[in-house]
Amino acid sequence: MHGTLHGLGLGPGDPELITLKSWRILSMAEVIAWPRGPSGESRARATAAPFIPDDVVEMAVPIPFGETQEALDAAYDAAAEDIRAHLAAGRDVAFICMGDPLFHGSFIYLAERLRGDFPVKAVPGVMAPSACAAAIGRPLACKQGVFKVLPATMAQKALGAELSAGGGTIAIIKAGHHLRALRGLLDEAGLLDRAYAVENAGREDERIAPLRDCGDDAPYFSTVMVFGEAA
Amino acid sequence: MHGTLHGLGLGPGDPELITLKSWRILSMAEVIAWPRGPSGESRARATAAPFIPDDVVEMAVPIPFGETQEALDAAYDAAAEDIRAHLAAGRDVAFICMGDPLFHGSFIYLAERLRGDFPVKAVPGVMAPSACAAAIGRPLACKQGVFKVLPATMAQKALGAELSAGGGTIAIIKAGHHLRALRGLLDEAGLLDRAYAVENAGREDERIAPLRDCGDDAPYFSTVMVFGEAA
Repeated sequence: MHGTLHGLGLGPGDPELITLKSWRILSMAEVIAWPRGPSGESRARATAAPFIPDDVVEMAVPIPFGETQEALDAAYDAAAEDIRAHLAAGRDVAFICMGDPLFHGSFIYLAERLRGDFPVKAVPGVMAPSACAAAIGRPLACKQGVFKVLPATMAQKALGAELSAGGGTIAIIKAGHHLRALRGLLDEAGLLDRAYAVENAGREDERIAPLRDCGDDAPYFSTVMVFGEAA
Repeated sequence: MHGTLHGLGLGPGDPELITLKSWRILSMAEVIAWPRGPSGESRARATAAPFIPDDVVEMAVPIPFGETQEALDAAYDAAAEDIRAHLAAGRDVAFICMGDPLFHGSFIYLAERLRGDFPVKAVPGVMAPSACAAAIGRPLACKQGVFKVLPATMAQKALGAELSAGGGTIAIIKAGHHLRALRGLLDEAGLLDRAYAVENAGREDERIAPLRDCGDDAPYFSTVMVFGEAA
């Protein structure tokens, strides 16, 4: 009997935004794995801390966020092999993820490597843009409005094209190291006055500022929200 | 002391995908309000049923989904007045919503009418497209991929333009009565082979079928998922 790999969405950062389902599976897992960034910290581990049983096996998965694709691939290969050993021995592994596990999550790359050989399941979670909208008190989308999520790391030309296509609400994720460039692109598209930079939405250290007025650097996982006219 | 209006996201339909925070506020609310569609049923009430205390005041809010803007406005005006009476008397009101309260939710229109006079707060929830991706086992987005949510009710020309802009993953919501038109638009955009129709993702009555092969009608809140090449 093989173990199951669960990708558990933890939501945007407030531990209370975990779902009952992620909480239940986390409580029962034999092994809990979590991504650890280059700083050595794990936002996922910190968010899930209230729900991690004392006697569980924990596994840190080092992920070199922001490095080359080769470095990332090597890290996911190594992590998949460590997880594979537990699954092959019949132990369920819960890999915890900020937000939703299938939305820009490391879980996607682990699942790719393991789903041929083991059962793999994802428990959806609340995405960061939802927490940003709740913190600011504006709709993500309504009526005929389009909602788009763009990674700040995509090619500037493609990003500019998506911004000028306009309409609706746009969330630009992983924006922390790109605020200056985004300010330029949004100004060109005539959208700068509707743009907010958001860090840690829904947590005690939440920061929200008009993009026009804030500095040029913020944590990697910051989001820039651009609200449409109707929203 | 006025009461607070809470918009509580319930997630996509599996009751276990409620967050701890929505659950807590639901457990403590003095009044629980829920949207009721023209059929007389309330998907939100059914989803939250396990968490609604026996002795709470409940309020059905009739919403004529799919009718004219005038009919909708009149319904929201009337509902806002009923809720206002509770808030003015100091009672907290929890308005429960499928998915996320600020994402195509009736809460948006109630909040608009009441936020000038009362505290209004939203608790984000898991959105339907996340549950669809988890059910199908494909990523919503990764790497440089764009993720878009389009309402099937938007103008066909604008919808077609967003589809041809292409790339990334697209979720078309409120798709149930538009499957035939969507099939045509997606075929024109060369995306039909990547499109799935999803009903009730994550629930026992979940149905997933390639859009090419399914019938022309499904429940109003069905979603069509179109996965990008990379995802």
